[in-house]
Amino acid sequence: MDTMALRNLTYGMFVLGTKNGDRPTGCTVNTVIQVTSDPILIMACVNHQNFTNQCIKQSKGFSVSILSEETPGSVIGNFGFRSGRDTDKFASIPYFLTPEGYPVLKLNTCGWLECKLESFTDLKTHTLFIGSLTGAEAGTAGAASGNPMTYAYYHRVVKGKAPANAPIFEKPLESLWTCPICGYQYDGSAGPFGDLPHSWKCPICGAGKDAFKLNKA
Amino acid sequence: MDTMALRNLTYGMFVLGTKNGDRPTGCTVNTVIQVTSDPILIMACVNHQNFTNQCIKQSKGFSVSILSEETPGSVIGNFGFRSGRDTDKFASIPYFLTPEGYPVLKLNTCGWLECKLESFTDLKTHTLFIGSLTGAEAGTAGAASGNPMTYAYYHRVVKGKAPANAPIFEKPLESLWTCPICGYQYDGSAGPFGDLPHSWKCPICGAGKDAFKLNKA
Repeated sequence: MDTMALRNLTYGMFVLGTKNGDRPTGCTVNTVIQVTSDPILIMACVNHQNFTNQCIKQSKGFSVSILSEETPGSVIGNFGFRSGRDTDKFASIPYFLTPEGYPVLKLNTCGWLECKLESFTDLKTHTLFIGSLTGAEAGTAGAASGNPMTYAYYHRVVKGKAPANAPIFEKPLESLWTCPICGYQYDGSAGPFGDLPHSWKCPICGAGKDAFKLNKA
Repeated sequence: MDTMALRNLTYGMFVLGTKNGDRPTGCTVNTVIQVTSDPILIMACVNHQNFTNQCIKQSKGFSVSILSEETPGSVIGNFGFRSGRDTDKFASIPYFLTPEGYPVLKLNTCGWLECKLESFTDLKTHTLFIGSLTGAEAGTAGAASGNPMTYAYYHRVVKGKAPANAPIFEKPLESLWTCPICGYQYDGSAGPFGDLPHSWKCPICGAGKDAFKLNKA
């Protein structure tokens, strides 16, 4: 069995928004799909350990910000590598609230959805949430291309395995310094890794320079 | 509410394989995702009216052929616009059987999965099938690029709205003759539509030339 085949499944990239009382929170997910059209039902899959999971169950709703290829890695990391339990993930992110009060990113999206929780199924590690569509707007706020970001694009381009405007897989990286938290590979764009200041941090997840490890080629 | 936003959700393209007794059957779907990694669980969403739906429930398993960008529209149409109730969809398609006897396409795939049905949830129009992974191989049999086909690529390129090797959205179509069954737009590659022989058929779904309609620009 070669589970590398699983890497060829296709996903988008989203910030799933919800609320803890009146406080907006959310997380980065790649598993949002439309499952039926009459009625329009949206499915999202979230790990049990994620604060967003319990907030969706309590608030009985969620929003989906559909990320575009222009979304910076730092925004994805902001929602992906910290917990909303002890962090206000929206503190430095421009956002607005949907009519039902769920947060949506203002910049670099290809539109947003608002869903009312209809049912959910708890698997061993994740919950499958099914929501009915209560609001939606298309749009490309701040997004130059307007292309939705795919999970493959995120891994190949945003995480630094290839520069955004270069042929993918063809340009060798200048170094193999890798973040042990999120997998980001330093692309050499700010000079040799050793010359970076000690205050430099992983642009995806914020891990310190000292945490980075040098992979052997 | 602008449901055009739903078009910016991202999906892959797959042939979901199953069996009716010993006879292989299946259908084209865009809704296959991995939902958990421990254990590895795969979700697929299939309309109740599809013959594949009842066959998965009876055989308690399914396969997933992950289509590449090279998959011809005719193959996708073969599995998408006919019913396996009265047609042997695999009659003209090279395939092999997984260890548990589920059919997998031999050509133009980015790998395949075999799943044992663990549970399912019936929504109003579709069933959400959850299967545990029992087999998988990566690979790019007959696929030049090895890129998985996305649903967006299928709509923009394969269905004829843009030639495969031309800048998408930039080249005007030579005609607007459109198939009312599958939405394929004739791309002018075999000459003016009016000059095509009466025996010409839609390359996606096999509809006759007479069924095509001329859209107004």
